[in-house]
Amino acid sequence: SSSMRSSLAGVSGATPTEEMNGAGNLMDFLDEPFPDVGTYEDFHTIDWLREKSRDTDRHRKITSKSKESIWELIKSLLDAWSGWVVMLLIGLLSGTLAGVIDLAVDWMTDLKEGVCLSAFWYSHEQCCWTSNETTFDDRDKCPQWQKWAELMTGHAEGAGAYVLNYFLYILWALLFSFLAVSLVRVFAPYACGSGIPEIKTILSGFIIRGYLGKWTLLIKTVTLVLAVSSGLSLGKEGPLVHVACCCGNLFCSLFSKYSKNEGKRREVLSAAAAAGVSVAFGAPIGGVLFSLEEVSYYFPLKTLWRSFFAALVAAFTLRSINPFGNSRLVLFYVEYHTPWYMAELVPFILLGVFGGLWGTLFIRANIAWCRRRKTTQLGKYPVLEVIAVTGITAVLAYPNPYTRRSTSELISELFNDCGALESSQLCDYINNPNMSRPVDDIPDRPAGPGVYTALWQLALALIFKIVITIFTFGMKIPSGLFIPSMAVGAIAGRIVGIAVEQMAYHHHDWIIFKNWCRPGADCVTPGLYAMVGAAACLGGVTRMTVSLVVIMFELTGGLEYIVPLMAAAVTSKWVADAFGKEGIYESHIQLNGYPYLDVRDEFTHRTLATDVMRPRRNDPPLAVLTQDSTTVEDVETLIKDTDYNGFPVVVSRESERLIGFVQRRDLTLAIKNARQKQDGVVSSSVVYFTEDAPQLPASNPQPLKLRRILNLSPFTVTDHTPMETVVDIFRKLGLRQCLVTRSGGFTLMIRHIVGSETPILSKHTGIVAMK
Amino acid sequence: SSSMRSSLAGVSGATPTEEMNGAGNLMDFLDEPFPDVGTYEDFHTIDWLREKSRDTDRHRKITSKSKESIWELIKSLLDAWSGWVVMLLIGLLSGTLAGVIDLAVDWMTDLKEGVCLSAFWYSHEQCCWTSNETTFDDRDKCPQWQKWAELMTGHAEGAGAYVLNYFLYILWALLFSFLAVSLVRVFAPYACGSGIPEIKTILSGFIIRGYLGKWTLLIKTVTLVLAVSSGLSLGKEGPLVHVACCCGNLFCSLFSKYSKNEGKRREVLSAAAAAGVSVAFGAPIGGVLFSLEEVSYYFPLKTLWRSFFAALVAAFTLRSINPFGNSRLVLFYVEYHTPWYMAELVPFILLGVFGGLWGTLFIRANIAWCRRRKTTQLGKYPVLEVIAVTGITAVLAYPNPYTRRSTSELISELFNDCGALESSQLCDYINNPNMSRPVDDIPDRPAGPGVYTALWQLALALIFKIVITIFTFGMKIPSGLFIPSMAVGAIAGRIVGIAVEQMAYHHHDWIIFKNWCRPGADCVTPGLYAMVGAAACLGGVTRMTVSLVVIMFELTGGLEYIVPLMAAAVTSKWVADAFGKEGIYESHIQLNGYPYLDVRDEFTHRTLATDVMRPRRNDPPLAVLTQDSTTVEDVETLIKDTDYNGFPVVVSRESERLIGFVQRRDLTLAIKNARQKQDGVVSSSVVYFTEDAPQLPASNPQPLKLRRILNLSPFTVTDHTPMETVVDIFRKLGLRQCLVTRSGGFTLMIRHIVGSETPILSKHTGIVAMK
Repeated sequence: SSSMRSSLAGVSGATPTEEMNGAGNLMDFLDEPFPDVGTYEDFHTIDWLREKSRDTDRHRKITSKSKESIWELIKSLLDAWSGWVVMLLIGLLSGTLAGVIDLAVDWMTDLKEGVCLSAFWYSHEQCCWTSNETTFDDRDKCPQWQKWAELMTGHAEGAGAYVLNYFLYILWALLFSFLAVSLVRVFAPYACGSGIPEIKTILSGFIIRGYLGKWTLLIKTVTLVLAVSSGLSLGKEGPLVHVACCCGNLFCSLFSKYSKNEGKRREVLSAAAAAGVSVAFGAPIGGVLFSLEEVSYYFPLKTLWRSFFAALVAAFTLRSINPFGNSRLVLFYVEYHTPWYMAELVPFILLGVFGGLWGTLFIRANIAWCRRRKTTQLGKYPVLEVIAVTGITAVLAYPNPYTRRSTSELISELFNDCGALESSQLCDYINNPNMSRPVDDIPDRPAGPGVYTALWQLALALIFKIVITIFTFGMKIPSGLFIPSMAVGAIAGRIVGIAVEQMAYHHHDWIIFKNWCRPGADCVTPGLYAMVGAAACLGGVTRMTVSLVVIMFELTGGLEYIVPLMAAAVTSKWVADAFGKEGIYESHIQLNGYPYLDVRDEFTHRTLATDVMRPRRNDPPLAVLTQDSTTVEDVETLIKDTDYNGFPVVVSRESERLIGFVQRRDLTLAIKNARQKQDGVVSSSVVYFTEDAPQLPASNPQPLKLRRILNLSPFTVTDHTPMETVVDIFRKLGLRQCLVTRSGGFTLMIRHIVGSETPILSKHTGIVAMK
Repeated sequence: SSSMRSSLAGVSGATPTEEMNGAGNLMDFLDEPFPDVGTYEDFHTIDWLREKSRDTDRHRKITSKSKESIWELIKSLLDAWSGWVVMLLIGLLSGTLAGVIDLAVDWMTDLKEGVCLSAFWYSHEQCCWTSNETTFDDRDKCPQWQKWAELMTGHAEGAGAYVLNYFLYILWALLFSFLAVSLVRVFAPYACGSGIPEIKTILSGFIIRGYLGKWTLLIKTVTLVLAVSSGLSLGKEGPLVHVACCCGNLFCSLFSKYSKNEGKRREVLSAAAAAGVSVAFGAPIGGVLFSLEEVSYYFPLKTLWRSFFAALVAAFTLRSINPFGNSRLVLFYVEYHTPWYMAELVPFILLGVFGGLWGTLFIRANIAWCRRRKTTQLGKYPVLEVIAVTGITAVLAYPNPYTRRSTSELISELFNDCGALESSQLCDYINNPNMSRPVDDIPDRPAGPGVYTALWQLALALIFKIVITIFTFGMKIPSGLFIPSMAVGAIAGRIVGIAVEQMAYHHHDWIIFKNWCRPGADCVTPGLYAMVGAAACLGGVTRMTVSLVVIMFELTGGLEYIVPLMAAAVTSKWVADAFGKEGIYESHIQLNGYPYLDVRDEFTHRTLATDVMRPRRNDPPLAVLTQDSTTVEDVETLIKDTDYNGFPVVVSRESERLIGFVQRRDLTLAIKNARQKQDGVVSSSVVYFTEDAPQLPASNPQPLKLRRILNLSPFTVTDHTPMETVVDIFRKLGLRQCLVTRSGGFTLMIRHIVGSETPILSKHTGIVAMK
């Protein structure tokens, strides 16, 4: 976790408070700015207004300088372009990383089963592609690709070979997951999980140093490959967003515009998140909307355009690497040949209900398990936990062909329509020998024994996936849950789809089928049901809406199927919302106690600022500083005795009129600096926040002037302001604190709502929730 | 303009200030609420915070009531669903209207040239489709369709027939445009123009009564058909957004949740704008992004999802009407068969530059012409102006086949790739007779004489379109400029495309073509150039970015061509921005003096609130009310003498401590009401804003208690707040006014920044701009 910390150590140049208050001419006692004034401590919230103000000042300076010389003009143009350069670099790097991860996962997943003799770095598919001896029907079997048992004993079939393969499959899985969890434990603890809850929190203005560091980037990339290859029920999509954000943070450090401003940095990170989803699914527009809808907090229009650029660059970089070997951009490319019918909306909506229920079940069970992990002995043995879950997964997964293969392959097969050339078990229909076989438009057929076997296996796989995913998500390895969620939905959807298809075939005369499904027509596409189910389950877990539908739209590429997807997504969200408003990411944010003020929460309590502000009636009085009568010692005592993030500065204790607000960190640094560098500042020196310190007799200790660290425009509301307005202001302006003034009476009372060690937003909402 | 006014007349029920201030128990002298308290006057700005607060109160009330009985629970559920119902209705109606408009325009455009004998209500295309005697090659010529000359004189060919057709073409055009402008003039003046600038202003919180009324909806729909059919250089896309917003406003009146809350109403309107673009182009995702990027001001995530729903419903309604007769959703469906090559980025970027220059030229010339219309005699003869422009357009357009037909048909042809079956002049290439003709993959061929003729005609059409569009946009008829802009770009693009294609064919050995264009290959797709040009020109005029690219993406349906489109859009925006930041809509907003605070404007002045607040040093003092010493007469005098929108209420004139803020309109209504209904309130009655009025001797006149109309939580900032922060607060919170407090000294000074007749935002920005 040291990488980001070190990259942030240099952020001392600017003294924003000085510029903000227009008091630059008051630099009277120090030639250098205070070190670190204007930066934030780890696990603290940033002040969006201040960051914005700093950036405007910076911009203003550059603009005025640019008129001075050609060189400054060029520098200002470079500065204006730096945003685009960062986006380009993010797109290139995250696209490349995604491609490398895809290739490595493919290879290592297959390594669990066997090896390519002609070139050991080929995956099964690549191995058989390059082979000339493969016929089309047998394209999965080629002599170059040998299973471990065949290679070691020479026997490809038989019980012995099966057991040996089984054993080696488990061994490889354990090895991969052990490596993954060890690397995470030793080198980068932040590399675990999906990362999306933390990124949401960071984008909302929280500082978690090292979370997006270089080290995290490296370890997360490597361990993601290991974790996915180990066959655990997890996906790479969420972690890819984290990886892309690490890339974004990395490139921020190239430009002081972004590295020195936490607000601007977050604009870049929003765009990086879009690039991450873009490469995860090959859906650039969906990625941008995901970032807008799900991840980002502050999303100006400029960011929208840049995010789109980054997402596109990333998608095209990935395509030029071509990890799927088919020039397709998208993860699951599907093409359906028949339209859907209104009557089918009923099963689609039922799938939506299933998705919503699954979302609720998963969130509740997973959160309960994660809480148990946090609070009991279980949390102390993360390596053992990963090993145990991997072992169980591998043992149970191997016998079932639908769980043995990688989850994305499974989803891909479930989404597929059964064309004439499809040879999989799921497409084992009984063909009418009298009919000519057109390639695309195959009428409904009765299911063969293969389909019935597949149905049983899929049902078992469904139960297995549902249970194991609950225990997998949240372990100390990189783990996304897009793919497992989609898998659950796709399995359920395919089962429903086949059921509807067979019903329609065998009961053409039923009233529900009569109108749209004549004998010999191709009415039902089970693959579409799988897709709708996947969307419903993903929606139930994450509560995505527009971005979910758009991502699915980009997978199919046709507006035709948007209505079924949308019906399922809406139903799933409604059903899930009925049991609890929070998606999995918000639940994990809450579980971990991150200070996140959800933009979407409706604030329904009827309280006023006066009801929640601190201190309350019986609390000790508000800790304030006076503008011209506090000594250095008083200030130091105050800092030591309290843990507030900052202090209001008032005229005097008698007349508590507000002058401004001073941040704890700035105050500490300023006093430390003055004591070291400024002669005559001793404990009894008076601290002045006024514009001019009075001329004092020489016998008095030298005064300490601190107006430059004083924020002269703190945000205030009256005590009659409804809390919903206050919360709205906090959300929209990204405030760090808010002062409450009461001006009806004779003295002006000042209360800052919250100001303790823990950041304001969480405490703030905490108070409201208590009422 | 009376429809919206009348629909708003009922908005008197709620007394939001009362609920907001939690002073409901003070209803001591009036059983009924004040009529109209809490509504806004025409041409005034709404207070977003107040609207939001009102909605929360409403919601809270319904939630608490819903626990009382089943009936209330059902009512609360209906209320929660009303948003979706409104969206559904908007989608259905705007889709239907768009379909009807498309059909009517098709028919009336063809009516200028001839009539279908078998059924006069058929357009040319429909007429020949239904005919059995048409062969595929001659599919545009069928005996049922007769030109006017043929019908009237029996001669289809010859100079006489040509002149007669020419004459009748002009006559029909003049008739249509005369009807259009007359209808607009007489029945709905607000139906003219594209409507997008006004809708942007309305969505930012301005009230223009009647602008979205039923009458405007009806007249705009009818006159839009007439205006487009008249052959003027205008499109139906912008007006369709206006029509959809009128639908939105219409359905708002069904639910008090929306009709009584100007803030909630604007959420619906944002979604309606998305539906409008969705049906204009058949691009639902693009429509939502257009609404987000270009039109809307306040766009919560809930609106995003609902907008998407409305846009989808609208698109599918339109498709089920099927006005283009091809089951396609999109206006210009294209399918290209060859990829693009990196070297082609050079002409694409050049097209971007052209688009940017065209955007700049168009905006400057059009604004100059509109200003002239506003300020000179020209503006007094709108009917004559329309007639004159229509006449000139018709006279010049008829001889050129590319301007005679409707502009969307022209664009469609320009976008098209020349397939093997294409018989148009633009596809008159010289085929190699030795080659077999595959349907899709036709190698580059030399251009035939038809192509060269087409080039000349296109060049003339380009000049004509550029000039005439400048004079057309802004006349007193419904007119959009998406289509004319795209036409300019498409013509330029197609010309460039053909030039590049012929260069590549004739000079295979040039270094720039060598690497990617072998002889016999299909390298260049001129249709793609047309599309890129159209995107560039549209981008230059409107400054759309993401939504532009997404709309174009939805037209082609493939990610393949996003990079060329994006390159052109980016270049065009940069070039155009270099000459002036404002797009055509912002320019028209400024020209018309609407109070619009652009979210995208960067605020770069370095001023503090103290520099812009009013009154200034030499101004008369701030007009304030005291909490317990102003008489009714004083208040009436103050209202008469000033034109401020509201007044701060202070403790006393000596100690100007702020108590709250009272709106001028509320004050006027409250006093009027009290004088009418409350005995004992006379001119010398004292107005009390305090919580309890003192017990007065019976001889004194009855006091008037007005605390319930007092906003106890007015928004305040300190005078040291930087103006960029103030502007940010105004934008993000949608304030109507802001008070500036100065608390360093002994008295608390209060200044409201602006408060005159014209709404705050424009004045506010006006002040800033003056400095």
